[in-house]
Amino acid sequence: MPKIGVVLSGCGAQDGAEIHESVITLLALDRAGADVTIMAPDMDQFHVVNHLNGEVVEPARNILVEAARIARGDIVDVATVSGNELDALIFPGGTGMAKNLFDYAMTGPECTVVNDVQRLTMEIIEGGKPLGAICIAPVMVAKILQKMGRSGKVTGGCSVDISNDIQAMGIATESAGAGDIVIDEENKIVTTPAYVEAKSIKEAADGIEKLVSKILAMVNS
Amino acid sequence: MPKIGVVLSGCGAQDGAEIHESVITLLALDRAGADVTIMAPDMDQFHVVNHLNGEVVEPARNILVEAARIARGDIVDVATVSGNELDALIFPGGTGMAKNLFDYAMTGPECTVVNDVQRLTMEIIEGGKPLGAICIAPVMVAKILQKMGRSGKVTGGCSVDISNDIQAMGIATESAGAGDIVIDEENKIVTTPAYVEAKSIKEAADGIEKLVSKILAMVNS
Repeated sequence: MPKIGVVLSGCGAQDGAEIHESVITLLALDRAGADVTIMAPDMDQFHVVNHLNGEVVEPARNILVEAARIARGDIVDVATVSGNELDALIFPGGTGMAKNLFDYAMTGPECTVVNDVQRLTMEIIEGGKPLGAICIAPVMVAKILQKMGRSGKVTGGCSVDISNDIQAMGIATESAGAGDIVIDEENKIVTTPAYVEAKSIKEAADGIEKLVSKILAMVNS
Repeated sequence: MPKIGVVLSGCGAQDGAEIHESVITLLALDRAGADVTIMAPDMDQFHVVNHLNGEVVEPARNILVEAARIARGDIVDVATVSGNELDALIFPGGTGMAKNLFDYAMTGPECTVVNDVQRLTMEIIEGGKPLGAICIAPVMVAKILQKMGRSGKVTGGCSVDISNDIQAMGIATESAGAGDIVIDEENKIVTTPAYVEAKSIKEAADGIEKLVSKILAMVNS
């Protein structure tokens, strides 16, 4: 039974993890027989957004506590997880992921990644284990590859600006539709644009299901 | 393109809509080609629960605003929707659904249903249109059938106590596993236990996908 980590960033596309992408990832992993560890950083979200009208509201919410809604309480602090315990790692996206797990939404290509998220991701890459990144998460993976001094390739389906930012990190981009995945065989990195391109939930699901299938095939190869 | 309403009760199993059940319902409907209207009541949740440790916390959260997280902002106040606009209606569950859409979790079999939720459900039943209820939602449907003076049948997979409560409302129960549905052909009501019985997300998904498929078959028959 492959042990797969899933890192969430809250609960809601605008200030946390994109909920559809997260649930579809969990369902695909369960159907494939994976043993899933859901995790999130134990820290406040960058901010809280009313998803009905887009306004920023108070008070603060904690990323781990809100992500526990998606995880039905079965979630751990990412700081407690070592890459040694996992066979692969997957990041669902959401604009909030680019506010909470790294700060690309605010600072652009000079972004930094939350320490334990970066540590765990580096442990996976250094261990030669598969890494999946959905939606905006490929930008974070590109930043971490840059920090590691590696070349690599991720989906650049996001937008011209985001593709340019990824390329400025020294990482290649490849266009992909919502139902497609981009495979970096050397780094064992699989990416899909999901709601960056998807017009509806089924389009996001098509790409995520392919990503999960490819990650598990890589674990078993 | 069948027009299907989905009523959410917040965002999180303990104080709102069960997130997995909600997303799996939306995905199955989209894959089947349905035109979905997501809705929720515009009122405060019964309470807010920290899903990491189970504690009740402040401040209040609004059901419609939190459900907008699952709906990616594409959601309307249930008070604005008429049964005439829909071909069918589906209720995902969650313990929070039995706190927010009706008050069964607090008051038991003497529970009452939020006015517009009851009105819309009655319009669907009176219109001879299919009604789907997942997890704890069949109890609410039983209560509404009782108010309408109808007999009927829903899943009683919940527990002996809940089955007894449903039967006390004059509605029959039928046991069902997580992957199964119970069909009340006369009222066109389809129910499935989902996380009342499911040990994992795939088990919940199996039953919900069957429910959505049956609801759409009833719309087209």
